[in-house]
Amino acid sequence: MSTITQLPGKTAENLKKIRAGKPLVHNITNFVVMNYTANVLLATGASPVMAHAAGEVEEMVGLAGSLVLNIGTLTDRWVDAMVLAGRRATVLGRPIILDPVGAGATALRTAAARRILAETRVSVVRGNASEILSLGDAAAAGRGVDAVHAVDEAVEVAARLATSLQTTLAVTGKVDLVTDGRKAVRIANGHPLMTAVTGTGCSATAIIGAFLAVDPDPLSAAATGLACFNIAGEMAGEKAAGPGSFMINLLDALYNLRPEEVAERSRFSTA
Amino acid sequence: MSTITQLPGKTAENLKKIRAGKPLVHNITNFVVMNYTANVLLATGASPVMAHAAGEVEEMVGLAGSLVLNIGTLTDRWVDAMVLAGRRATVLGRPIILDPVGAGATALRTAAARRILAETRVSVVRGNASEILSLGDAAAAGRGVDAVHAVDEAVEVAARLATSLQTTLAVTGKVDLVTDGRKAVRIANGHPLMTAVTGTGCSATAIIGAFLAVDPDPLSAAATGLACFNIAGEMAGEKAAGPGSFMINLLDALYNLRPEEVAERSRFSTA
Amino acid sequence: MSTITQLPGKTAENLKKIRAGKPLVHNITNFVVMNYTANVLLATGASPVMAHAAGEVEEMVGLAGSLVLNIGTLTDRWVDAMVLAGRRATVLGRPIILDPVGAGATALRTAAARRILAETRVSVVRGNASEILSLGDAAAAGRGVDAVHAVDEAVEVAARLATSLQTTLAVTGKVDLVTDGRKAVRIANGHPLMTAVTGTGCSATAIIGAFLAVDPDPLSAAATGLACFNIAGEMAGEKAAGPGSFMINLLDALYNLRPEEVAERSRFSTA
Repeated sequence: MSTITQLPGKTAENLKKIRAGKPLVHNITNFVVMNYTANVLLATGASPVMAHAAGEVEEMVGLAGSLVLNIGTLTDRWVDAMVLAGRRATVLGRPIILDPVGAGATALRTAAARRILAETRVSVVRGNASEILSLGDAAAAGRGVDAVHAVDEAVEVAARLATSLQTTLAVTGKVDLVTDGRKAVRIANGHPLMTAVTGTGCSATAIIGAFLAVDPDPLSAAATGLACFNIAGEMAGEKAAGPGSFMINLLDALYNLRPEEVAERSRFSTA
Repeated sequence: MSTITQLPGKTAENLKKIRAGKPLVHNITNFVVMNYTANVLLATGASPVMAHAAGEVEEMVGLAGSLVLNIGTLTDRWVDAMVLAGRRATVLGRPIILDPVGAGATALRTAAARRILAETRVSVVRGNASEILSLGDAAAAGRGVDAVHAVDEAVEVAARLATSLQTTLAVTGKVDLVTDGRKAVRIANGHPLMTAVTGTGCSATAIIGAFLAVDPDPLSAAATGLACFNIAGEMAGEKAAGPGSFMINLLDALYNLRPEEVAERSRFSTA
Repeated sequence: MSTITQLPGKTAENLKKIRAGKPLVHNITNFVVMNYTANVLLATGASPVMAHAAGEVEEMVGLAGSLVLNIGTLTDRWVDAMVLAGRRATVLGRPIILDPVGAGATALRTAAARRILAETRVSVVRGNASEILSLGDAAAAGRGVDAVHAVDEAVEVAARLATSLQTTLAVTGKVDLVTDGRKAVRIANGHPLMTAVTGTGCSATAIIGAFLAVDPDPLSAAATGLACFNIAGEMAGEKAAGPGSFMINLLDALYNLRPEEVAERSRFSTA
């Protein structure tokens, strides 16, 4: 992976690659955020496709640069389709990112997230601290999709968990944390209004999906993707009158993001 | 219930309670409005969760302060999940609000709404006049989700219907009407652009869901919730260039709503 | 059909008819665009309803002025419902428009689009060039929902395809093309930001659905509907800061569109 000093340049480079290559990002995601995350991906420069039928997910993921799995409004049938697509992605070497929305809140969600981790090769898991913690053995009481644990509590557990799950974890909160168990990076960009709009977490996941399609290093893809998203959030927040104008400004900001700007504004640090 | 003179103060108080307690509102709702109503709940101060899998709805409603059931894009399987969640909510004493979208328009919708009313204890039903009327025996021809009956026609029928269904009815239109069969309140706030955006009715329902989580009186919860939503609608409409900017302004307005402001602007009257 | 010189006046006339009659447009469409296309239809003046349950689609389409079928997030069950609704619409003489989203990209989508064309009487198919081409025998490699063929390539093939499929084809791109095999019209209105927002293609389809409810000539309904939508796009683009503000401006522009204005700004030509 890039050293911490290389990440700002890498952020700019990855954004340029997405705009140039327009990678197809295959999403099997929840009903609440389908429209918004598709628009987030388009504004960033990627090509989103949403497809969940068992009869086509394997074919679709073969056309895609990466696969986004999000269990926000899961049913058994949808999780089956996620596993089907994920297995095919694993065989083809396509990177997978998992968003375990609400894991820890209900047994069904925790089990679904763990099943996907067990049956496919997930490159990155993006969640809030309580969702991430629920993937390990620690009893982590969930409460809907809200973060009940601070990011700080999660640092050590996350590193151990990343190692045991053999994946990269992106724990988002006031300050984001990305770790693969050996290395860790923090990203301090962001804006308070990001928590006042539904689907910003899911959008961060989708954007990391786009970054994974152009950057083979999960740690770097997750960290640079989060930096871009959070910087756009800062810009959107500067002139927002509330969560409505914020969510619209965020799409505009992602679309207008200049590579040199994200390099300059990014605030990476070692964890 | 509060007397009519107490409702303005109650509106401010309920809004404060939602902001302080951030009640989890469990929604089993339609695909069209999932994103927008989640954002409406967040902007108001509540914590929305959307979950419809039979395998988790009973667990989820146990974590929630209230349950919103909306049949806008129903199938049998979804209605089964609504009944499952609703029965559990009834046992746990969690308030339920039903939005019978399109009841009267097709037999499936009318039957689904009646089934939910029969098998669960619904605290409030929110609909337009024709949807509400279709729940009774009066032949009320529906036409999609449009209101073909004026609110006025519905007043007497609504009071009788509320009594026979043992629930509180919130009939929205140019002027809203809330009745539990014994008492009735009208709310005159609102803006014409509210009918030019999809999901404003469903959003009113979701907001009443949040108010039910902090106010044990269904009549007062429904009346004060509608007042807040309609006042935000007035503010949003003042500077809207059309339905697009209106729907975004509405989220901003809900987020910025001050308790003293809603108390002052509310226009309650006896029916 | 109207001659080319009559189309500007016809555009204004059709828009007036929609505003006056508020036709109910029954949509069986994809999860990504349900909210946005409902808002597009409302802003234009039509009454959208989304309903996909096998138990009600036949009844619902009986209430509607037209039927929009969109396979964007298809499963077998949804396609079955589309065929059920489509057969009933065919019997009742209600016009059908099909949006074959992603046809050519996966076998499931190509087969679904062809099945709907074979089992119902489709008045108009609206898609990008590669989606439309995939409906014929020509091998047309699809790549998600992106257009990999220019509109120009498609002109001749489209005319032959329209004849063989006995339908009207609306091929959208930089310049749109509408052909029924005998006559053809091009519409040069539009704005580059239309491709930066998800669901603009699906929205064009939905709007043509509304126009089909007031104009019995598929060629004229498709051409005038596209002109209205594209002109609103031009207006929205003039003051947009990016795709977020564009999608909101587009709803405002559709709502404020004046009939004389669309007649004046429309840019029809023979193909």
